[in-house]
Amino acid sequence: MDASAITLALDSLWVMLAAILVIAMQGGFALLEAGSTRMKNSGHVAGKQIISFAIASLGFWAIGFAITFGNGNSFIGTSGWFLSGGEDAFSSLSWAVVPLELKFLFQLAFVGVSLAIAWGGFAERGKLIVYFIFGIIFTMFIYPVIGHWVWGGGWLGSMGMQDFAGSTVVHLQGAVAALVATILLGPRIGKFNKDGSPNIIPGHNQVYTVLGGIILWICWFGFNAGSTMAVGDGFFTYVALTTNLAAAAGAIAALVTAKLLVGKADIPATVNGVLAALVAITASCAFVEPWAAVVIGAAAGAVTFWTSIYFEKKGLDDPVYAFSVHGIAGVIGTISTGLFASPRLVEITGIGQPGLFYGGGFAQLFVQVIGVLGAAAYVAAVSFAVLFILKKTIGLRVSAEEEMSGLDISEHGSYGYPEHIGIINKKNQAS
Amino acid sequence: MDASAITLALDSLWVMLAAILVIAMQGGFALLEAGSTRMKNSGHVAGKQIISFAIASLGFWAIGFAITFGNGNSFIGTSGWFLSGGEDAFSSLSWAVVPLELKFLFQLAFVGVSLAIAWGGFAERGKLIVYFIFGIIFTMFIYPVIGHWVWGGGWLGSMGMQDFAGSTVVHLQGAVAALVATILLGPRIGKFNKDGSPNIIPGHNQVYTVLGGIILWICWFGFNAGSTMAVGDGFFTYVALTTNLAAAAGAIAALVTAKLLVGKADIPATVNGVLAALVAITASCAFVEPWAAVVIGAAAGAVTFWTSIYFEKKGLDDPVYAFSVHGIAGVIGTISTGLFASPRLVEITGIGQPGLFYGGGFAQLFVQVIGVLGAAAYVAAVSFAVLFILKKTIGLRVSAEEEMSGLDISEHGSYGYPEHIGIINKKNQAS
Amino acid sequence: MDASAITLALDSLWVMLAAILVIAMQGGFALLEAGSTRMKNSGHVAGKQIISFAIASLGFWAIGFAITFGNGNSFIGTSGWFLSGGEDAFSSLSWAVVPLELKFLFQLAFVGVSLAIAWGGFAERGKLIVYFIFGIIFTMFIYPVIGHWVWGGGWLGSMGMQDFAGSTVVHLQGAVAALVATILLGPRIGKFNKDGSPNIIPGHNQVYTVLGGIILWICWFGFNAGSTMAVGDGFFTYVALTTNLAAAAGAIAALVTAKLLVGKADIPATVNGVLAALVAITASCAFVEPWAAVVIGAAAGAVTFWTSIYFEKKGLDDPVYAFSVHGIAGVIGTISTGLFASPRLVEITGIGQPGLFYGGGFAQLFVQVIGVLGAAAYVAAVSFAVLFILKKTIGLRVSAEEEMSGLDISEHGSYGYPEHIGIINKKNQAS
Repeated sequence: MDASAITLALDSLWVMLAAILVIAMQGGFALLEAGSTRMKNSGHVAGKQIISFAIASLGFWAIGFAITFGNGNSFIGTSGWFLSGGEDAFSSLSWAVVPLELKFLFQLAFVGVSLAIAWGGFAERGKLIVYFIFGIIFTMFIYPVIGHWVWGGGWLGSMGMQDFAGSTVVHLQGAVAALVATILLGPRIGKFNKDGSPNIIPGHNQVYTVLGGIILWICWFGFNAGSTMAVGDGFFTYVALTTNLAAAAGAIAALVTAKLLVGKADIPATVNGVLAALVAITASCAFVEPWAAVVIGAAAGAVTFWTSIYFEKKGLDDPVYAFSVHGIAGVIGTISTGLFASPRLVEITGIGQPGLFYGGGFAQLFVQVIGVLGAAAYVAAVSFAVLFILKKTIGLRVSAEEEMSGLDISEHGSYGYPEHIGIINKKNQAS
Repeated sequence: MDASAITLALDSLWVMLAAILVIAMQGGFALLEAGSTRMKNSGHVAGKQIISFAIASLGFWAIGFAITFGNGNSFIGTSGWFLSGGEDAFSSLSWAVVPLELKFLFQLAFVGVSLAIAWGGFAERGKLIVYFIFGIIFTMFIYPVIGHWVWGGGWLGSMGMQDFAGSTVVHLQGAVAALVATILLGPRIGKFNKDGSPNIIPGHNQVYTVLGGIILWICWFGFNAGSTMAVGDGFFTYVALTTNLAAAAGAIAALVTAKLLVGKADIPATVNGVLAALVAITASCAFVEPWAAVVIGAAAGAVTFWTSIYFEKKGLDDPVYAFSVHGIAGVIGTISTGLFASPRLVEITGIGQPGLFYGGGFAQLFVQVIGVLGAAAYVAAVSFAVLFILKKTIGLRVSAEEEMSGLDISEHGSYGYPEHIGIINKKNQAS
Repeated sequence: MDASAITLALDSLWVMLAAILVIAMQGGFALLEAGSTRMKNSGHVAGKQIISFAIASLGFWAIGFAITFGNGNSFIGTSGWFLSGGEDAFSSLSWAVVPLELKFLFQLAFVGVSLAIAWGGFAERGKLIVYFIFGIIFTMFIYPVIGHWVWGGGWLGSMGMQDFAGSTVVHLQGAVAALVATILLGPRIGKFNKDGSPNIIPGHNQVYTVLGGIILWICWFGFNAGSTMAVGDGFFTYVALTTNLAAAAGAIAALVTAKLLVGKADIPATVNGVLAALVAITASCAFVEPWAAVVIGAAAGAVTFWTSIYFEKKGLDDPVYAFSVHGIAGVIGTISTGLFASPRLVEITGIGQPGLFYGGGFAQLFVQVIGVLGAAAYVAAVSFAVLFILKKTIGLRVSAEEEMSGLDISEHGSYGYPEHIGIINKKNQAS
């Protein structure tokens, strides 16, 4: 075997493992979101994860991957539909040596995560058919455009934007779509009182929530460290280290913040602290020193707990806190490299400039801010247009009666937990 | 390191990862089957997965692996008991360069899956001791014979049968054993009315079912792509691509078929659509083009939804639809290469001929049909003999009273969910 | 690429996979422990797994890793705080070629497991703040000392102690801490009657318990086979084989023992049999032949079932049987190499001497016994001192009222299953 064959084999092994891990995040989201919502919607919330990834798999294969990574202009790719044209059609990915099939699978895993985040905004009240239509459009025409801008040879990448594994491309993007959905759908029945004060609608199973969080934490090693797409001299292990440190700091920061702000060491908040930290370190994992990873993770864990409460008080019903955990933390993470990117790591990655705290001035910070604003604006605009049209035509939301009885029975014809629900219904009749 | 040492290391890494993934399917089956059955049997249904894999691990080590891959004749292997004799005792596996221990672990994972499928047919009414005895015989004397015929140097392999990762060897085989068990055990109490019409006995937890399905989807990358048993020039990533496309198509096809046929977008049916598609692409993943993978997956997802209903109407109570999902789809998948196998992929794999649609004529199709019939006949005959004897001696089925109270308490002495069951029992006494 | 670069890449891939698997054991423990305890504590029991691993991640990074593997004396390491000083600061790990970041992550995963075991002893009655404080001390000052003694250049390693992946370092250590906690905390309310006879307090979800067990089984391939920290000539696959055989034997042995001793084929006992066998083979996996692995696994599975009952009869309330499953089995495993270590494997590993049954005399057996006693004594002494001080100051245990209402609501302010609990509370009021 010559050196290039060995490199191909080594990198393929690593990226395959990473792709499997990132695809496995679908299981993490299924648990996290089902655990964080009510029993009557559990089959629906978990099951849509499978529908979501199925849509993404076909849509990204047919159209989305070509727009994201195909050769084209600064705004979209225009070659490589259905993976046709071979490696030459995707010159923006020529830096990675793994087979095109694997490049596709790995990138598909990311769009799958972004769509899973977006769908959090529809939880417990959105129509299945709306999910379906929006999922197709998101996979084919929303995500791919931002992906192209940053990673596919587009204008943000050309400016030197640092978003190593997608705090903006994957997380902020999904979160903005979730936010638009949340606003257009309106709050769940019973979430707010007449005076506007919010009620707590607790998720039905914290064990699911915790297990979902652990799965996501673990799979994030594929997400971040896998984004090296190469084994090289072992730099991927450095990325794994910063990722883990940030997650740990986020857990502790959220736990302590919850204890201080609301007096309880809230478990779901701790899980969300881990996720927010992971979202934030996603952009910066390859650019910052370990101590900075701890700072970034802690900041994301603490801030997103606060914003979760803040948005709720302001009348926004985001059932799984998708916008705080993936959006606010996505912004924190993307901006963070403008502050913390260290010269030695910028040199290793070859992307952008060192951050403000390392004497790099405001140059990189400016690029990061532009990236956040540009991505958020595009996603918000297109998501709003699509959902607004759907709202005015088929309607976004199930009927009040269907929402009350739960989407399991109304959208899918069977309960997620028929034996448990049977007990509840009997109880309600009795009381 | 010389080239052969590097190849050994690379391939060992890949096959080890694949083996771990395929063994992890035990967790997927535990969730899928527990979620698809009732609460009173949940500890039993999940727990037997551990018992099952423990039996397989010991039985396949002692006897089964030697019969499957040991040197012998066209019908059985006769060397290598307890992994003795080293690589030389297993010349049918000499094409793979990984250590013998790893060949064993990877192949063990497959027999573990086949047994898990077979055991689905016993669900909610079979005696634990029958499971135990049948599991030992299946692992030692049923699976290994078919494995030898196709992969171990036997007559089906010599004919050029294309069954890349085991649509027939693993899935159809397990499904036929499940069918025999289902027939000999008879339907669960309450499944059919006096007029023969079926009642729905819903599974108790769709979140488990969904999560089980996601785990199986993910682990299937090990199942199919791992069956290359080599990293080579990255061909395993191609296999992963076709596998994923088929699964996605199966999900959508089953969802749409359910909506059209019975008016509801059924979640368990969607999960079964994914699995059926994965079963079908298992034989064909290395032989067909991506578009054909989509066709095969969609066909399996749609057809098995229909057969699930059909068999139920005909009086067959197959609690987790093992025969449709693994049997019918196994047949579809095995036959599919006789139609869709493309010349370039047949050349890469070096097995069999191109399919009918590529001008290969009926030759390969004929081989595939013979393979299906031969394997099904052997498994059906031996399973029937074993279970018939057990039925006439110790009996296959728990008493009606035990079945009503659930196998958790009757077979294992404790409830799977003691606190939930307590509520139900109190409710029942109250009402 | 030259040979050393290839070795670095191969080994890094393997150890990264192994680290991910061992970190994923946190999910296994969350399920196992939540399933084995009551519904009212489920969010707490699962959630503390995240808190636990977060503490370990930061504490082991700052202090623990330096004490464990840093250069120092026979008792503690004294260099490499916060991973500073590079490879040179950790000469005890110079035999492994992977990057320092990865050495840290892999070893962190082990301390995370050990702490998860220790925390089992606090279940259902310990204060969260005590967990927190003990976790920090354990991660920084307890585990690292034993780790140094055996693996970090300390006196037990110098004597040739054989503890390949940590039956003593990880499992016995965590179990002794759990035992100390169990004794100082005292039994749960309602566990023992006035005459001292124990009541069964069944875990609330056997599906979780089973799935947790399966996850741990699978992840143990990373634990044991990953401890080679090298791909080499494929020896890690041999370690995987002995690990799997032991686990299978443990399952069957525990199942049969339970059936014989108490008349029921208990599912949680079977899961614990798997775990006990895995704990036992952890020390010996690289030193013993396959047949011996079966013997060791079976012995551990059978004995720990018996000791679980025995300790309970003696008045010890160890809610998840941490001391039997990890402590007794840890001793069995550590001692076992003194009996079964085979000359050819001792030569491959280069550690210690062959065991008694291979003509090695009592020499190695003596070392193993010293190792067990030394490690247990240190952990017991320090854990006792720490917990005794905490008991006399802030108190270890929540109030009786809080214990009765469950730690979910009393420590974290929300129920793990609010909808289920609602039903139970209504029921209790009604009855």
